[in-house]
Amino acid sequence: MSEQPTTIAYPVDATNQLKRRHDRGFYDHATIHALLDAAMLCHVSYVVDSQPFCTPTFFWREGTTLFWHGSAASRMLRNLAEGEPACLTVTHLDSLVLARSGFNHSADYRSVMAFGKARLVIDQDEKERALVMMVDRLFPGRTASLRKSSRQEIKGTSVIAMDIERASAKIRARGVVDEDEDYALPIYAERLPVKMVIGEPQQCPRLVAGVVRPQALEGYRPGRLLEEALAEAQALAYPEEASLPKSRAPGSAS
Amino acid sequence: MSEQPTTIAYPVDATNQLKRRHDRGFYDHATIHALLDAAMLCHVSYVVDSQPFCTPTFFWREGTTLFWHGSAASRMLRNLAEGEPACLTVTHLDSLVLARSGFNHSADYRSVMAFGKARLVIDQDEKERALVMMVDRLFPGRTASLRKSSRQEIKGTSVIAMDIERASAKIRARGVVDEDEDYALPIYAERLPVKMVIGEPQQCPRLVAGVVRPQALEGYRPGRLLEEALAEAQALAYPEEASLPKSRAPGSAS
Repeated sequence: MSEQPTTIAYPVDATNQLKRRHDRGFYDHATIHALLDAAMLCHVSYVVDSQPFCTPTFFWREGTTLFWHGSAASRMLRNLAEGEPACLTVTHLDSLVLARSGFNHSADYRSVMAFGKARLVIDQDEKERALVMMVDRLFPGRTASLRKSSRQEIKGTSVIAMDIERASAKIRARGVVDEDEDYALPIYAERLPVKMVIGEPQQCPRLVAGVVRPQALEGYRPGRLLEEALAEAQALAYPEEASLPKSRAPGSAS
Repeated sequence: MSEQPTTIAYPVDATNQLKRRHDRGFYDHATIHALLDAAMLCHVSYVVDSQPFCTPTFFWREGTTLFWHGSAASRMLRNLAEGEPACLTVTHLDSLVLARSGFNHSADYRSVMAFGKARLVIDQDEKERALVMMVDRLFPGRTASLRKSSRQEIKGTSVIAMDIERASAKIRARGVVDEDEDYALPIYAERLPVKMVIGEPQQCPRLVAGVVRPQALEGYRPGRLLEEALAEAQALAYPEEASLPKSRAPGSAS
């Protein structure tokens, strides 16, 4: 994570400013985008008749725009189609922290909350391009090798876009932190790391003879951190962004 | 997961009924509680001035009540203190699914959305008990070995409770599913499993000489699935629930 945030940052107001633990907050593009790019799963919040919903879904980032997908029939998309306020959150859990007091039990984590107005992608060209990137962001170039989508399939998929208006990252990476006087106590304390790793790929049992795993999937190898493979794929899928120096991070022009 | 849901279930209405993919929906206590107990991280949605927020936090379950925690100063807790509608969601990501068409790319996952009114725990006894379970739900019996919480620490921690009024689980566990005619195409397809595993415990470097890792932490061993250790800890922390037969799942009396 960027210890020295670049100067390009999201504006801060009452919506995204951290209300506590200011030391854990970041608003710069580089930090926020890196955490988003290391994930594929997010949770999106939206409101229907005063009832909040928190829906898990898959997303990707293009500059300062977030995209996610679902069926046209889903509750979330029907509601957001007209440009509804939404909050998209990504969380990486890094450890459980066992301290010498209940109060100091904690966890290490890296999270992003992004705020904006979600809208249904209606323009046909924008939608078709989004459906390509939905796959290619994870598996660069894969769409070219697939059976082409039918008109019906494209119609049956909805894509949501949200320009990020406000965002914040919150990072705790400190392990055990106890009160000074508590270190003298004969109490066990540890940081217990957890990580999301890739398992052994399970080939479809109905593969046509001679079809092998494409080299392009090499990044997704057993034992590797999922977030590493995802970040690498994002950089391959959006090379023009990856090549920018950190001080001119993606989306800076918007 | 329960393929044959027990008869004890959460009521279903417009809020929690799956709007699509009904085959993936479960409403029974056993399925929903098992998915909650296998997690410690959740995302909570709530609304402040029409703006939805999606906040990652740590939670635990006691019967049909969910608890989570935060500082009294946090935006979420201030807002929910008066009994605000909330939605708490837990998601386990199990795989990425690479199909022969873009449309059939998917993922295996298990998620729960729980709806209710969140309230601040104010009663002193209820709060102190909750602060014990906040630690002991993860590490059964650990609180007894810790430095006792000060009055100030208890005051400085807020606990939120939400009785589950509605809930649903959504599960996809199918791997690659393509259109019948697509299996004949020379396109590579696979299910790529992902899993959240426990790493090597990192002892606090300032442990008092002779202090060793308690046997009670044995469940948290390197390489094990985090969700297995969490579910085991929950059963130890709430033995009266774990001993109930599945057909009389926790919370059935409420």
